[in-house]
Amino acid sequence: MNRNSQMGMKGDTNVAPIITLLSDFGNRDPYVGSMKGVILSICRKARIVDISHEISKFSVSHGAYVLASVVSYFPSGTIHVCIVDPGVGTKRKALIIKTRRDYLIGPDNGVLAFAANREGVELLIEITNSKYMRDEISSTFHGRDIFSAVAAHLANGVPVMEFGRETNEFVQPDFSKPVQNGGKLSGEIIHLDDFGNVVTNISLEDIRKLGLSPGVSVKILLGRAVHEVRFGMTYGDVVKGQAVALIGSTGLLEISVNSGNASFSFKAREGSKVTISRI
Amino acid sequence: MNRNSQMGMKGDTNVAPIITLLSDFGNRDPYVGSMKGVILSICRKARIVDISHEISKFSVSHGAYVLASVVSYFPSGTIHVCIVDPGVGTKRKALIIKTRRDYLIGPDNGVLAFAANREGVELLIEITNSKYMRDEISSTFHGRDIFSAVAAHLANGVPVMEFGRETNEFVQPDFSKPVQNGGKLSGEIIHLDDFGNVVTNISLEDIRKLGLSPGVSVKILLGRAVHEVRFGMTYGDVVKGQAVALIGSTGLLEISVNSGNASFSFKAREGSKVTISRI
Amino acid sequence: MNRNSQMGMKGDTNVAPIITLLSDFGNRDPYVGSMKGVILSICRKARIVDISHEISKFSVSHGAYVLASVVSYFPSGTIHVCIVDPGVGTKRKALIIKTRRDYLIGPDNGVLAFAANREGVELLIEITNSKYMRDEISSTFHGRDIFSAVAAHLANGVPVMEFGRETNEFVQPDFSKPVQNGGKLSGEIIHLDDFGNVVTNISLEDIRKLGLSPGVSVKILLGRAVHEVRFGMTYGDVVKGQAVALIGSTGLLEISVNSGNASFSFKAREGSKVTISRI
Repeated sequence: MNRNSQMGMKGDTNVAPIITLLSDFGNRDPYVGSMKGVILSICRKARIVDISHEISKFSVSHGAYVLASVVSYFPSGTIHVCIVDPGVGTKRKALIIKTRRDYLIGPDNGVLAFAANREGVELLIEITNSKYMRDEISSTFHGRDIFSAVAAHLANGVPVMEFGRETNEFVQPDFSKPVQNGGKLSGEIIHLDDFGNVVTNISLEDIRKLGLSPGVSVKILLGRAVHEVRFGMTYGDVVKGQAVALIGSTGLLEISVNSGNASFSFKAREGSKVTISRI
Repeated sequence: MNRNSQMGMKGDTNVAPIITLLSDFGNRDPYVGSMKGVILSICRKARIVDISHEISKFSVSHGAYVLASVVSYFPSGTIHVCIVDPGVGTKRKALIIKTRRDYLIGPDNGVLAFAANREGVELLIEITNSKYMRDEISSTFHGRDIFSAVAAHLANGVPVMEFGRETNEFVQPDFSKPVQNGGKLSGEIIHLDDFGNVVTNISLEDIRKLGLSPGVSVKILLGRAVHEVRFGMTYGDVVKGQAVALIGSTGLLEISVNSGNASFSFKAREGSKVTISRI
Repeated sequence: MNRNSQMGMKGDTNVAPIITLLSDFGNRDPYVGSMKGVILSICRKARIVDISHEISKFSVSHGAYVLASVVSYFPSGTIHVCIVDPGVGTKRKALIIKTRRDYLIGPDNGVLAFAANREGVELLIEITNSKYMRDEISSTFHGRDIFSAVAAHLANGVPVMEFGRETNEFVQPDFSKPVQNGGKLSGEIIHLDDFGNVVTNISLEDIRKLGLSPGVSVKILLGRAVHEVRFGMTYGDVVKGQAVALIGSTGLLEISVNSGNASFSFKAREGSKVTISRI
């Protein structure tokens, strides 16, 4: 936890509200710029922070992973807008999730849920009040016409209850919780990062239940291949080109190759099953 | 229109001026960072907003399209710097276009004109006053040495007339206005977006003149192939994998494939002709 | 130099401190967002400016080149965080370099040194004081847990001496200074930019020592091929498709092709030797 993370907006009217943006819109199109314009037109003082706009197209799990990985580092009261929205224009709900720390805004398709589960949900609002949307709602771009506008009005101090009606459930993401079966732990690959690291949904807690500690080697079943991999603390624990399983910076088990690309070496695919056991 | 879009800089000295940046400089080189440094050195309080730096290299039409698509969402008084400048170092003019809403700054090669036409031109200034340029002008990087510096001085409150001499014409972009011929409407493809949407220069107005309304199917001639496509309101109007023609979020006709890639399906190319007619 | 570049933080408590970010983290992962969150949690008023997160993975020379290319354009007092860190988690030192203009923060692997040499080093601090790091230090992500936190505390006004102990040496980058041998000048390619420009480590000064001036043709040895290239002032000095050697916007010799891609034409590789001589 950050020492100063409790410093929020409350009671400090001089502090500019923070709105973060996360999407699969890419950086070649007008989509991101339009959202920034809408926000600044409604809440001129908002601090806009780009998290990423290069989430894999329509990949709710990629977006949910990145959002869940960053929220705890931001000041409390931050407003996170997360748009990976393959169902835009259909009947999926639009949500504000107030957690114990912050606000998560986006479509109700699971993209917010992983972060919400981690932070702790306090209040769920289904966005229905058109007063806080743009006057013309495009059927293809709720990121601009609903979510950005709502985020900016929230940043202006509009009470969260004003945006719609309380609800008590939201779509849980597809990420399955890893399953322990005796000395085996089965999870899945939720992201292949730019460094070639293979990120799983297996947490440090899960690993501890298995009784593993740094230094031992573990057996990793990935696809049909079994690999013996060192469970280490840092890339430097193994020689260049060798694989290491370690708890990455987001608290999840990653399989990496020192100065190499584990994703290529292990022919990893997002969504594939991964099973870990002692040797 | 945004409810608060009339809130500009005038009369409110506490509001930080907004400078947006749009270019084909990419994000691997020092170009964008240099521009930001120049701006902040001249106008420390400026709010810099990235629109995109991944415009296709030298593609004036791509830059013009993205700029025209975002300007109306920003607060009035915003300063937009748009640098797609294949002719840098040659005799093309450097421009400030004051529109009814904002300021557009960039080379006079058409990249500003589409936005200027939409917003309404109030004043055209050819930038000639070296007082507001950097002391050393590189022959290859006017984005840094002229346009960023001018934008920052403008943000500081220097009157627009100070930057050079009034002029009364500017280069119009190549985008042809779509042509109606009886029941046929011919336009061109101006952008293929990251989602595979095919964006044309045909507006909702043009479509209305043709007497089309959502729900009907239309005939689209693209290259040598004729396609029957549903004219719908949302991607959800057609089943997955099926094409739909709809008015996209920028007010222009787009051809899309639900959960697919129209750009691949239709073998679309930027600049190609597209003709629409009733069936 | 910028006219207003001397306007720093000193004595002006209303000016928000600027923290720039440069890394090889890419924009698909949570890394950059985490760093921004850490900074804003510690120093809410900091202005965060992205320079680039698309430095080639583990390419210290690419990072060093981009950093050195941008620092002089920023206001004095700016805090630059530069993370290209293949040795993270090993014993390489963590540094703050106070230059005559600004602060450079990052790993001691050469990535800061090129900029430091240009700006002039005033003070070297090895970061050792865990009081200004995050409570839990991941072994794989010092960009977030050490460098971002230190930058934010520095922005809050913590004196630079507080962060660790003074040291008097730092790793110099691999970039060799170009070598003059009679009428020949040998340097190396340090970057291939997005426009296909071939950037060398040969400066305008080096060129002047060789007695070259714009307009003459020069002989360029690249790999095994010898090319005759015009030494010009601007891309427009040669016809489309023809090569030109010129001093680029960063003060270094670049080989370019007017409206083309010199990198492809010359089959250039980063790190390759390049030799220039009169004809």
